[in-house]
Amino acid sequence: MQEVLGTLSPEQYVLVYNAFSFGLAAFAAATIFFWLGRSQVAPEYKTALTITGLVTFIAFYHYFRIFESFDAAVTLSGGVVEATGKEFNRAYRYVDWLLTVPLLLIELILVMRLTQAETVSKSTTLGVAAALMILLGYPGEVSEGIDNTRLIWGALSMIPFLYIVYSLYVGLGEAIKRQPEDVKGLIKLARNVTVASWFFYPVVYFAPFVIDLSGADAFAVIEVGYTIADIIAKAAFGVLIYVIAVRKSAASA
Amino acid sequence: MQEVLGTLSPEQYVLVYNAFSFGLAAFAAATIFFWLGRSQVAPEYKTALTITGLVTFIAFYHYFRIFESFDAAVTLSGGVVEATGKEFNRAYRYVDWLLTVPLLLIELILVMRLTQAETVSKSTTLGVAAALMILLGYPGEVSEGIDNTRLIWGALSMIPFLYIVYSLYVGLGEAIKRQPEDVKGLIKLARNVTVASWFFYPVVYFAPFVIDLSGADAFAVIEVGYTIADIIAKAAFGVLIYVIAVRKSAASA
Repeated sequence: MQEVLGTLSPEQYVLVYNAFSFGLAAFAAATIFFWLGRSQVAPEYKTALTITGLVTFIAFYHYFRIFESFDAAVTLSGGVVEATGKEFNRAYRYVDWLLTVPLLLIELILVMRLTQAETVSKSTTLGVAAALMILLGYPGEVSEGIDNTRLIWGALSMIPFLYIVYSLYVGLGEAIKRQPEDVKGLIKLARNVTVASWFFYPVVYFAPFVIDLSGADAFAVIEVGYTIADIIAKAAFGVLIYVIAVRKSAASA
Repeated sequence: MQEVLGTLSPEQYVLVYNAFSFGLAAFAAATIFFWLGRSQVAPEYKTALTITGLVTFIAFYHYFRIFESFDAAVTLSGGVVEATGKEFNRAYRYVDWLLTVPLLLIELILVMRLTQAETVSKSTTLGVAAALMILLGYPGEVSEGIDNTRLIWGALSMIPFLYIVYSLYVGLGEAIKRQPEDVKGLIKLARNVTVASWFFYPVVYFAPFVIDLSGADAFAVIEVGYTIADIIAKAAFGVLIYVIAVRKSAASA
């Protein structure tokens, strides 16, 4: 992994560097937006916005760490990119997902205002499935080899992944049908954005089996791709949650 | 202790590093969640949430220190783990527990809304017992030898430990029976989570008498284990306190 950093072109270095800074700024701004928005929704939607802001806050923290780690691991000086030897910690992304992915699913459940029992049971099963999905992916990711370790853990990780997708369409599909008419489309959109943006992650995870991702090009594409996927799955998704909360608050007023 | 840091494998180094960062992020997020949640509960439960957030805030501070201390004591560069010679301060955990463990017990008492006299007497006795438990464990922990010093202080520390467990089941058991039906199960769960997660600490404390914990494997297991135990005992426990406070507020509204 480390060797590839020194082979980045100056353009690639600048692109990745700015993508991380962009992520950091986007998540900080999104966090403030969601928390300030808490005062504008009915009491029953405040927790959904608190958690929406927590997700972007945690992502902000990790993009700050990723940015600092990249900055310490590679330098661009006199037009030359050089690896310093310091490790670039790619695992920050896993730590981030372990915290944020369960919370993302809980946001969606909270904004739907199901019964107390349904909220608790769906938050628990989907939250645990999401944490399991990330934990199972980790050993394969850090093994670094394109071998059975990666394949087996990746395959295991896909079980909770598919369970979540299934639950969002079938289990929550029923609950979505009971939502008020003017937010039903938005809730479906939020669910679809979640699932669509998530597909980027397993594609990157399994891509090394098909194509060689060891080069600088692949590094730049993956890091910029993850950043875009994260922003869509967390900040853009959060805006949908916010709009749903505002509309439902207006309807209940 | 210091020699072991240089013998960590790169995978162990990354795992411990990310566990500390995970703890830091989890406690920061939990703190904000509890403090924002104060506005959503009845006035009589605000103090319980303030203290719940204080516990995670103090833990956030200490995980930041632990992370920085680890980062200064060991480096991973060019795929090689090296100890810098700087001391990794394990005592941060004790300082953290000395502040947070009494507060954790007070949270649980506050959310139960006992009479004023009971609240004061139980908070005082359990709080003092918890502080005593930590203080008595400390001299054994820093002695570093697997000898009588560790054994005697550890045994002394177990006296308040067992007193607390006894009080939570017998003394508070009566008070739990008087709680409203819809939160009784949650309060029992909160009490059980506390006791179950606490058992990790004496197990690690006394383990050196039975098995050799001086290696890198043991270091990684202990540090990751403490982090998980802390997150369960403080953040997950806090979420239970929050849910109890919200339900009781709704019932009293």
